[in-house]
Amino acid sequence: MRGTEGPETFSAFDVVGHLIDGEETDWMPRARIILARGPDPRFEPYDRFRHRARNVGRSLTSLLDELARLRAANLEELASWKLSEAQLRLTGIHPMFGAVTLRQLLAAWVVHDLGHVAQIARVMAKQYKDEVGPWVPFMPVLTDHERPRS
Amino acid sequence: MRGTEGPETFSAFDVVGHLIDGEETDWMPRARIILARGPDPRFEPYDRFRHRARNVGRSLTSLLDELARLRAANLEELASWKLSEAQLRLTGIHPMFGAVTLRQLLAAWVVHDLGHVAQIARVMAKQYKDEVGPWVPFMPVLTDHERPRS
Repeated sequence: MRGTEGPETFSAFDVVGHLIDGEETDWMPRARIILARGPDPRFEPYDRFRHRARNVGRSLTSLLDELARLRAANLEELASWKLSEAQLRLTGIHPMFGAVTLRQLLAAWVVHDLGHVAQIARVMAKQYKDEVGPWVPFMPVLTDHERPRS
Repeated sequence: MRGTEGPETFSAFDVVGHLIDGEETDWMPRARIILARGPDPRFEPYDRFRHRARNVGRSLTSLLDELARLRAANLEELASWKLSEAQLRLTGIHPMFGAVTLRQLLAAWVVHDLGHVAQIARVMAKQYKDEVGPWVPFMPVLTDHERPRS
């Protein structure tokens, strides 16, 4: 659970912390900025490493419990908004790539999850790379992202 | 759940069928061949497309239930063997890469799972590629395996 793919890459534990950061500081706060339609619809920059200091000494189980609670509360709030097509077309300003719609933000939330699920499976798989012997070339998950991407 | 990454690639539904095939025809049957120490320790070749004809008309839920049952039974049998270090060093003959140890076979079973978990997340993520707009270059899961590997 603490194994990584190399320096500056996330372990499964790190990914759970990163997803918690997303719940607390990224997706819903940005959706609220868009829906507020205030004079300055710029999103706060997102800190990819907030979790490192935040979660020192925490167990994986307690982080998973926290993520589940935060996610459930966020999904409940999101559903309570009963977003209209017109609201989904509203935009905010992303610090790196400018105007994005609420629809794109919500889709990115889903894809971000799935990307990190794939990452957790890949990072866990790589911990067994020396154990599988001749299967390595037939298991692309063991050699994907040898140079980490974004 | 039926979306793929292109021709001749697996959907999430296909992957579940493929994992069922693994439970029924691959990992445990091969482990039994190794442990039997018979005169011909060659494994049967594995049919990667057995699930296609087998699962026509099945629902994803019923396949997931079946996989859970098969896996639980296989893990119970595996645990009942109480394998020794000496047994883990026994070998069988893989149809493509020759002698493999029982230890390598069991490690490959784990990594095979994780590879397909990563694949399911990736294939599901790609179904949203048009929805996330400017996030595409920041979400490698959307562009991994553009040419399918193994």
